[in-house]
Amino acid sequence: MESFNLENICRAAADAKKGIGCLNTNEKNEALLSVADALVKNEAAIIEANMKDMENGRQNGMKSAILDRLFLNGDRIEAMAKGLRKVAGLPDPIGEVMDMSKRPNGMTVGKRRVPIGVIGIIYEARPNVTSDAFGLCFKSGNVCILKGGSDAINSTRAIVNIIRKALEGCNIDANAVTLIESADRAVTKEFMKMNKYVDLLIPRGSAGLIRATMENSTIPVIETGTGNCHVYVDKDADINMALNILVNAKTQRIGVCNACESLVIHRNIIGEFLPKAVSALKEHNVEIRGDKEARDISGEIVSATDEDFYTEYLDYIISVRTVGSVEEAIDHINEHNTKHSETIITENYETACKFLDEIDAACVYVNASTRFTDGEEFGFGAEIGISTQKLHARGPMGLRELTTYKYVIYGNGQIRN
Amino acid sequence: MESFNLENICRAAADAKKGIGCLNTNEKNEALLSVADALVKNEAAIIEANMKDMENGRQNGMKSAILDRLFLNGDRIEAMAKGLRKVAGLPDPIGEVMDMSKRPNGMTVGKRRVPIGVIGIIYEARPNVTSDAFGLCFKSGNVCILKGGSDAINSTRAIVNIIRKALEGCNIDANAVTLIESADRAVTKEFMKMNKYVDLLIPRGSAGLIRATMENSTIPVIETGTGNCHVYVDKDADINMALNILVNAKTQRIGVCNACESLVIHRNIIGEFLPKAVSALKEHNVEIRGDKEARDISGEIVSATDEDFYTEYLDYIISVRTVGSVEEAIDHINEHNTKHSETIITENYETACKFLDEIDAACVYVNASTRFTDGEEFGFGAEIGISTQKLHARGPMGLRELTTYKYVIYGNGQIRN
Repeated sequence: MESFNLENICRAAADAKKGIGCLNTNEKNEALLSVADALVKNEAAIIEANMKDMENGRQNGMKSAILDRLFLNGDRIEAMAKGLRKVAGLPDPIGEVMDMSKRPNGMTVGKRRVPIGVIGIIYEARPNVTSDAFGLCFKSGNVCILKGGSDAINSTRAIVNIIRKALEGCNIDANAVTLIESADRAVTKEFMKMNKYVDLLIPRGSAGLIRATMENSTIPVIETGTGNCHVYVDKDADINMALNILVNAKTQRIGVCNACESLVIHRNIIGEFLPKAVSALKEHNVEIRGDKEARDISGEIVSATDEDFYTEYLDYIISVRTVGSVEEAIDHINEHNTKHSETIITENYETACKFLDEIDAACVYVNASTRFTDGEEFGFGAEIGISTQKLHARGPMGLRELTTYKYVIYGNGQIRN
Repeated sequence: MESFNLENICRAAADAKKGIGCLNTNEKNEALLSVADALVKNEAAIIEANMKDMENGRQNGMKSAILDRLFLNGDRIEAMAKGLRKVAGLPDPIGEVMDMSKRPNGMTVGKRRVPIGVIGIIYEARPNVTSDAFGLCFKSGNVCILKGGSDAINSTRAIVNIIRKALEGCNIDANAVTLIESADRAVTKEFMKMNKYVDLLIPRGSAGLIRATMENSTIPVIETGTGNCHVYVDKDADINMALNILVNAKTQRIGVCNACESLVIHRNIIGEFLPKAVSALKEHNVEIRGDKEARDISGEIVSATDEDFYTEYLDYIISVRTVGSVEEAIDHINEHNTKHSETIITENYETACKFLDEIDAACVYVNASTRFTDGEEFGFGAEIGISTQKLHARGPMGLRELTTYKYVIYGNGQIRN
């Protein structure tokens, strides 16, 4: 284990945080634009490094979907630069003062928005996460330590080196971003214990990575990503709206966390709705796994196991569950969901209110597709991930969710009696 | 290990959370008042149980300060009831909607404040924490699972049983509060792994308890409590104000987390200020441990080790460190503090701004005593603890800090393109 190096990296990041946290908005924006230019200018070096990763991936029998995520070309590097320029254009969250008021003893007390400090990001084989994560952390005044996937190590190293050099060119501490280069899993585990230096850990990737981080980390973690999202078609649904939303939520993009994985349907409407839903989903080659009541309606539905209702397929598969009331729908969803995004289709006011009140999830919709759970769609301009836990931030996390606050208190000699 | 029971307790709490979270404000307030009355009415039973704990404590050689914390009488039970009545009078944080706006596609998106769910509270030998913690969790719509100190088990059991019976009398699920009665440390450790059922863990007590929780828990934890707080007397300080604040912050109450543990003093003012500070502190029998420059000024100061500057004494002891600039003061404080509360005494605008900007702590003061870091003093009406971490909540935690939010989205058929 390269423990000596790892502690040095973390300490250097912690040492950099006061300087990075105190940069003003103009300094940060200029640096982001300069990094964006540097990435484009050094496109050849990035592509060369990426070719090594692609070659290694092919030799190691990497699947084509993963190879596609790993692949970089001029367009993709330009997209990374464009992302950074966009972040430069977003409002700076740092310095906002909230809830300021004068206390009876004359002290003025308020909450000032400040950076979190050092943010660790653990991700897998997507080299573009490197510049995205840096941009969001940097704009919100944070230092970041990146632990990218070992499959993308050459690409990631090239990108981080270019970012660091561009920061130095702006007279900014290059330790605003550091890469943990080791491919050793023990180092990743050790990194999760660096709570002395690292204030927050965000794992981005597979459910397995996220679980391992939750279980091993002594650093506070924000859980992101997995979405077993439901569309509940109520007895009072508009049938056409329900069909549109179901097909959109299931098929508009398959491998994303806000896609629908399960249809919950009210018994009173099943005869009218389900045959139309089956034929619409079949047009998109979706396999349908349902309970007995659903199978009784359509011979094209195969049998669902209990496990199906807990499964985030990320694939052309959907489960179907029949219920007799909105209460039953709510209980089923709260039991099986991953607290991500849930939607009800109904024209009934009281039913809609009940669903909004009682569903436990980051995002609860009435009459809209779950696919809108996204920082861009919610108007944040960008996102670092979608939190499915309850502490600190829930749902899409933008710049503001990468900050904390401190109380600032202006006195003139107050003492406590 | 009573693992079967523990999992049952946690599951029952999780099952109760939807019902408790949906109670309206009137229902919650009536229940709180009813619980308050029940505590007073059943005073004799509580005192009888407490006498057993006191007797066991004496036989086990418990220190008198701890015995005093453990002790309950009519006045103290009345104070517990008064605390619950006060919480009943506070505004209900649940249901507030924040940042609601209409998106370009016509969807309305907002954040609705909701309970966290199941909150675990681990504490030591203060039986009054039982009703305080229940009151704050319940008013904010949360279910709580309490793990009190084994030394107070009879008192805590009596209090929890009375609360549960009073809730039942209001037709409210008694599982709004449950006690883990085991004195087995292995059960506490197992409790920390119940992230399937428990949404948040708050340890209240010694630094050792808090550290053990941070290290063992798979449930998100809010770190509370330890305060190595500094008073920095700048070269431009008003001497009398500095003396008043120093003496107040150090001596007004000794064993609390927002008390001052260290004086940092600018070299230019040390000759004028320190002799006065020493005699004022000596009047309160405070032992003073300083660096060489401080000792050169006053023979009453003994030598401080490096460890002294990291120590939260919670006693009549203070450390003194000399610095040559506000920058040096800030670096010293950021290196040694526990991110709790820090104050500067200065008449210099620029120096005050620098201190507010660069100190990393939950509460940063200018010209006021650190002793004000408290939910009551900040106007929250009550507090469950003072967070010294950065995620979710920082500083005094009131009702609002025991909540999270969910996005609610009102659509009329929107799908994503």
